[in-house]
Order: sequence, then structure tokens, then C-alpha cells
Amino acid sequence: MSEILYHTITDADVEYLRSVTSPDRVFYGEEIEYDYHHDEMPDFGTHAPDVVVQALTTKEVSAIMKYAYAHTIPVTSRGAGTGLSGGAVPFFGGILLCLDKMNKILEWDLDNMTVVVEPGVLVMELANAAIEKGVFYPPEPGEKTASIGGNVMTNAGGMKAVGYGVTRNYVVSMEVVMPNGDILQFGSNVAKNTSGYNLKELVVGSEGTLCIATKLRMRVVPQPKVSYTLLVPYPTLDSCVGTVPSFINSNLNPTAIEYMPKSLLDDAEYYLNKIMPHKTANSYLILMFDGTSTEDVERRCDEAAAICLEHGAEDVFLCNTDERKEAVWSVRGAALEALKASTTDMDECDIVVPRNRIADFSRFADTMMEKYGLRISIQGHAGDGNMHIQLMRDDMDKAIFEKNCPQCMKELYAKAKEFGGQVSGEHGIGRARVAALEEHMGPEMIALFNGIKNAFDPKRIMNPGKVIR
Amino acid sequence: MSEILYHTITDADVEYLRSVTSPDRVFYGEEIEYDYHHDEMPDFGTHAPDVVVQALTTKEVSAIMKYAYAHTIPVTSRGAGTGLSGGAVPFFGGILLCLDKMNKILEWDLDNMTVVVEPGVLVMELANAAIEKGVFYPPEPGEKTASIGGNVMTNAGGMKAVGYGVTRNYVVSMEVVMPNGDILQFGSNVAKNTSGYNLKELVVGSEGTLCIATKLRMRVVPQPKVSYTLLVPYPTLDSCVGTVPSFINSNLNPTAIEYMPKSLLDDAEYYLNKIMPHKTANSYLILMFDGTSTEDVERRCDEAAAICLEHGAEDVFLCNTDERKEAVWSVRGAALEALKASTTDMDECDIVVPRNRIADFSRFADTMMEKYGLRISIQGHAGDGNMHIQLMRDDMDKAIFEKNCPQCMKELYAKAKEFGGQVSGEHGIGRARVAALEEHMGPEMIALFNGIKNAFDPKRIMNPGKVIR
Repeated sequence: MSEILYHTITDADVEYLRSVTSPDRVFYGEEIEYDYHHDEMPDFGTHAPDVVVQALTTKEVSAIMKYAYAHTIPVTSRGAGTGLSGGAVPFFGGILLCLDKMNKILEWDLDNMTVVVEPGVLVMELANAAIEKGVFYPPEPGEKTASIGGNVMTNAGGMKAVGYGVTRNYVVSMEVVMPNGDILQFGSNVAKNTSGYNLKELVVGSEGTLCIATKLRMRVVPQPKVSYTLLVPYPTLDSCVGTVPSFINSNLNPTAIEYMPKSLLDDAEYYLNKIMPHKTANSYLILMFDGTSTEDVERRCDEAAAICLEHGAEDVFLCNTDERKEAVWSVRGAALEALKASTTDMDECDIVVPRNRIADFSRFADTMMEKYGLRISIQGHAGDGNMHIQLMRDDMDKAIFEKNCPQCMKELYAKAKEFGGQVSGEHGIGRARVAALEEHMGPEMIALFNGIKNAFDPKRIMNPGKVIR
Repeated sequence: MSEILYHTITDADVEYLRSVTSPDRVFYGEEIEYDYHHDEMPDFGTHAPDVVVQALTTKEVSAIMKYAYAHTIPVTSRGAGTGLSGGAVPFFGGILLCLDKMNKILEWDLDNMTVVVEPGVLVMELANAAIEKGVFYPPEPGEKTASIGGNVMTNAGGMKAVGYGVTRNYVVSMEVVMPNGDILQFGSNVAKNTSGYNLKELVVGSEGTLCIATKLRMRVVPQPKVSYTLLVPYPTLDSCVGTVPSFINSNLNPTAIEYMPKSLLDDAEYYLNKIMPHKTANSYLILMFDGTSTEDVERRCDEAAAICLEHGAEDVFLCNTDERKEAVWSVRGAALEALKASTTDMDECDIVVPRNRIADFSRFADTMMEKYGLRISIQGHAGDGNMHIQLMRDDMDKAIFEKNCPQCMKELYAKAKEFGGQVSGEHGIGRARVAALEEHMGPEMIALFNGIKNAFDPKRIMNPGKVIR
């Protein structure tokens, strides 16, 4: 493919962008804050946009895209900037189109159990608003200040995906602005649909490389009445994650099944200055059960505890008060921040494997620690086979770390593929995993991805360099 | 777009197809049975293939496609031929690629609750095999002798979609043969995934116009232990379907919510020679509740009954024996066949609207009866807003029927769009609804569909004339 020649932003362009939005929502050159150069993983690279535009309406987004399309200007859309793969970093400069001010909840339709939101609404704002309406928005990624637009574009997962599914399962329809400025509707407020190619499903997880979602109709569900958590210590990793398949094919319907090794628990406890109810075991499962009655949840917890003990658990701690639940989940939730705080530099992957291969994969990752002299942390969503693996530099020489890290990652991705896994479970490809995706998919798949990309974005101005090159 | 010039099948082509498959699985010219000219709605048109090939392996499918691609021969894939929109009818002749002999269940993986099947496995075979394994495959379209490949390609729904979702929700990954013969994997045996464009989600519901699925990994779930049905007579349509939103935003988690007018109940009863427990009311809701214990299901049925009575139901009949349940569901299941048997010619649509617009839409459809002098039957999946509306000729003059039908359909589609609905909920576009889809989507969306089509199938040999022209 021939190189695309992007237009370089001039004063006249900035003037035009101000004219279709507002002067106080366009930032140029030195007016641009460093925050716009990166996401939450600056280790994956940073880059300055040429101009930052904060849009307020679909019409503004359309006008911006029409202009960018006519002049071949790259456009990177950005929500809350909490991504973990460099997806919202404008590596080609151009326009950084910020949607964080498009943050209104527009319409509740409780007859159909849907809600229309703008993309800049934060996930925790949507979750809280749902509770106030007496309903429930289940997806709960680790980062609750993420925007819903970003969650949809990465198909974010989170702790409760085991019981409730991922963000994809909650996207009913969307209004999008195409690269050429056209405004289209993908789907509508219906419960099922098989009317032509399902572009909504294609756009979910496309990381802003195909179009910009300017309105999202999301599904909500009835609120669970009761939620209990179990903290389960195990003497070995094998017995710990070996319990997982028994839950998956049981009728117990767990909401969350998380796995934490002792080392990470120690880091997170230290980081938060909190005390866990138990902390001497080798490995921990954290289980959540939601339900409509105390009786029902208690019964499922009892059965779950029996399964854990059968599989060699040392004990089972029931957390049925807000305080106890908060202690456990805040420690789990702090894992990434705790690791970041514990080291100098960090690389991360988000591999997903079949649920019954987690132990095998963890053991393999452990051997990488010795081979490359890196500290490696493995934790994650045991219930769906999605593991976050951090490689930490600590006091290793930076040049050696930068040489060892990619080699170690390459081995991890190759092993995941061997196990029938995938490159990313919920963080997305962004810029960080483009090479890994190419390697995993092979040239025919990448050619097909390029065909899809061209159907939406023939001038390749939408978030260039992400997902595919 | 310029017209594509398809190659006309010759004896040499047939010879080649026999060489890569087997002489006894290739049928040419007069050897082709009439069954291969149509699906279950011959009213939507019939057409003879030039040659029928029964494939047994992915390798054969790949060889056939490679040849068809090189020679620009149209290929229509076909499972059990039970479609309702002309989707598997080879309107451009060419090769009819039959997958019904690729009918093996290849691998159970109960640790990950998935099963790998060939596309020709029938839905009822998969459902029965799941039960034998102690698990459950929930999607249950009206036509149980449909193939799983066809169900995936139309994203089939069925009665239980309210509680369990549609076929899409059960497709974990697929092996496909591309139009040029390449064999690709879309997804793998993982519980979540955000690794590049989700082509699996795009192919589900694409009606064989993008590629051919040769292996499907489907998700199964734990078996419910108890299932009860409620038959609920209402004095009016409004009170009947007006109850639906109360279930959708309750914690009662119904498995199925079906609506039947008295007239259809009479037709179905007559057709089956069965007696329903109640048959004098204007409208009926049929509800199903699945659960893990009798106690739990009984409690939910009690609460559901109270909701129905609050909304004006005349009574609530509990069906908790196999015999009673079978009586109700067999009558519901016989609706389409009963209607077919009751008239001369029939046209059908599969409109889906927001769940709280069913009553409005039904009333509108009723007015069409008078306007066009047609007998119209409306029934369907009240729980997901999906209505099957049949226009029946009876003894109307055929020419008048053929003039009135399209006009009436046009009005129905326009009203569905006005209500925020879609052209097809579960039957697909096929050939029958291509014009309606174009009208509904508009030129920008159709151009985008064409871009997607070209990315997969640049020579446009896959199931031409379906979904888009």
C-alpha cells in the first residue's frame, strides 16, 4: 500500500475548526496540554496532536469530519483518555477530537429497558444514573472513570463479564459520524434484528478506526437485590484456577470469578493501606454472586463454597456486608495502580485463553520470569480466561528491559495462540498490539481487515496506526 | 455498478466439481430435484441451480470456491432449505453448494461449555445432543429441522430469545471458506475477545453472502431444572401486549413471551386437531419461565400471574405438566403451517419494533386488512417486539393480490420505520426483502453494505441477489 500523505494543520484550518465549533473549544500548538499526548499507558508511546477540538454536538462532529475528509487530515477521537493500549493517542498528529463534553444522558426508555447516552458519559455516571432509575448497567471495567464511548469502542469487559457479559452485549444501537461526515444509524431500539450486515456489531470494538459514535443506546437490566462475595484462599495456583470450570458448567451463575496471586495481594494491600481478611495463601479466587433473594444467593454461595473446598481450598470467607465486600474488591481493583507504583517501567498484555488453560498459561508465564530476569505479575478474570500480565523493569537496566520485553511478549503471544487464545480480551489493540495482531492473524486476515477499513474510511484518516497499520 | 458477467456452467465444470468431490454428490441438469429450486416460502420465488454439489469437508468447499472464484461462477450455499426469505434459492443459477451432509458434531468441550459442529447439523439434533451431555442449547426457532449453519447465517431467534438471546449470542467462533477458497478462523474458543475487527459478529446474519461457515463453535449453558408455562387470556389486544413491558423490567426473567390472537389459535387448533385449555378470549399471552428449582419457578409464575391480572387478564392457566405444556406450545408452533394450509397464497413479513409499540403496530396492521381487502394474521414474539404478519390471498383474484400485497407491505415497512423498527427480526432479508431493506436503509448505508460485500467477495459470486443487489 502506498503511503498516505496527510495534510499538515495550518492557521486557516484552525480558524475553520473554530468557526464550526467555538473558539474556546479549540486548542492549537502550545495551548495543548500534555494530558492530550497520552492515555493511561504512556509506556506505549506519546504524541502531540496538532489541534485539539472539543465537540458538543453530532453536527459539530460531522462538520469537523467533512473538513478533515476533504483535506485528508488524520482524526483521533478521545473520550476520557483512560485507555491502556495507546488507542486514543494521535501518533500522526492532526485533529484530536475530544468527546468528553458530549456527556449527557439523553433519554431513558424503561418500557424497552434502554437508555440513550452521549459518548462522553462516564461509565460510573451511567451506572449511578441507572441505580437512581431503579435499574442496572452491569459492565464494570476496572477503570470507572472511562467514558462509555471508549468502553464501546474497545468492547470493555471487567469483573462482572462472567455473569453479565461484556459491553457489546449492552449496545442496542448507535448514531455514528462517518469519516466523510455522513451521519448514519446502526440499529435501532429493538430487541432483535437481522436486517442486513450488522454494522453495530462490527463497530463495537473497532477502537475509533471506522467511524465516531455520537449517540449510544445502551441496554439496562433489572437490579439484583442481593450481592455476596467469597474470598477463597488456595495452597496452589493449580487448585485455585482448576476450580473455575466447575463454576462455568454449574447452575450457580457466578457474576465474577477473579484470580489473584499472593504477591499481587500484598502489593495492592500495601498500596491501599488496607487489610484483607486473609493473606497467607499462595493464590486466591474472588467470587461474586448476585441474585433476587438472600435465600437464593445464600444457597448458591453454600454450593460454591462446597465446590471450592472439594478442589482444595484452604477456607472460604463470606463477605456479605458492604464493608467486607469493599475491602476485597478495592484490593482487587487497585492491582494495576499498585503494580505501576511498585516499579519503574512496565509493559502489559491482555491475553485471553480458553478458560481451562489459565493454569497452563500462568505456569508458562512464570518460566518467562526466570528466562528474561523480569518481574512478572499475572492476575485477572479467571472466569473468562482473560489475564493481565505485567512485565516490570524495577531496577533492570533500561536498555536490557527494552530488549527483553518485546521478546518475552512475543513468546507470551505465541503460547496464547498455541492454546487457542487471542491477543486481547478487553483492552483492545490500539497501537501497543498492532504487531502482535498481525503476527496472530496472518496476512489474509489483515488484508480482510484492510478491506473493511477501506469500506468505511477510504482516505484512512480515522485514528490511523491503530488496530491495523 | 456494472453488471457482473457470470460464467455459464459447462460439462467440463461439472467434471471438475466431480473430481474434487465425488461423482455421486454432484447433480447436473435434469438430475436436480425440484426441492433444490426453493425454500419454505416458494411464494418468494424459485429458481433452478445449474449444478448441485454436496460437500463433505472444508477442503472440498475450499476447492469448489477456488474454482468458482477463478471462473466467476455464482455459488449459493444451502443447509436444510427451511429458510423463509428465499435466501438459499439460486436465483442466478450456478452452483448450489449443499452443506446438509456436513452434519457431524465434532467436539464437546464442557470445561469451556462449547461444542464444535458442522453447519449441516440440525438445530434439534444439537439441542438433543446437548441434553444427552447434561447441558442446554437454548435457541429454538419455530423450525427445528433448520440447520445450525442456516440459523447462524440468519441470526435466527425463536420463542426463547427473550430469556436466552438469539443465535448470535451462542456463536463463539467459526471456520469459514472465503469466496476465493481461503480458509480462515474468525475468533476462537475464548469467552471474550477484542482483537481487531470482529468478523465473526459481522458474518452472523450475513445470509451466506460473505463466506461459507464450515465449522461452528457454539456455546451451551447449564440446563434449567424446571420449566413452567402460563396461558393468559385477555379481553383486548391492548391489555394483552400492554403487559409486556412490566415483564421486561421485572426481575422475573421470562424465557418466552408470545402473543396469539384468537383467530390464529382457532386456525392452529383446527390444523393440529388439538384442544387448547382456553379459547374464547380475544388475545392470548403465552409465558414460559425456566429455573433451577420448582420453588423459584413457582414464585416467579405467581408474581407473573399477579402482573397479568393487574393488566386485565381474564384468568391465568398454569401448565406445569409435559402434556399441558405440549398442548400450548404445539399450537403456537403450528401457527405458520396452519396459516399456509388455510389459504391459497401468502406473503409474510418479519418486522421488529420497540417492545412497547406492538399494540400500536398491530392496530395499524389491522387497518390494512380493510384497506386492501386482505386477510392478515399477526402473531409473534411479543417479548422482543418481533411480529410475523401474514397477508393471505384466500379467494381474492390473484392479479389483485399481487398488486395489493406489495403496496400493503410497503405501508407496513414504512410504519415500522416510523416506530423505530427494523425490516427483519429473525428471518433475514434473503431475496424477499431486498427492496424493503434498500428503502429502509437509504443509499449511504447500502453503499457501505456494498463496501463490506466487496471486501469479502470482490467478484460477487457468493449468494448473489441476497441482502443487497
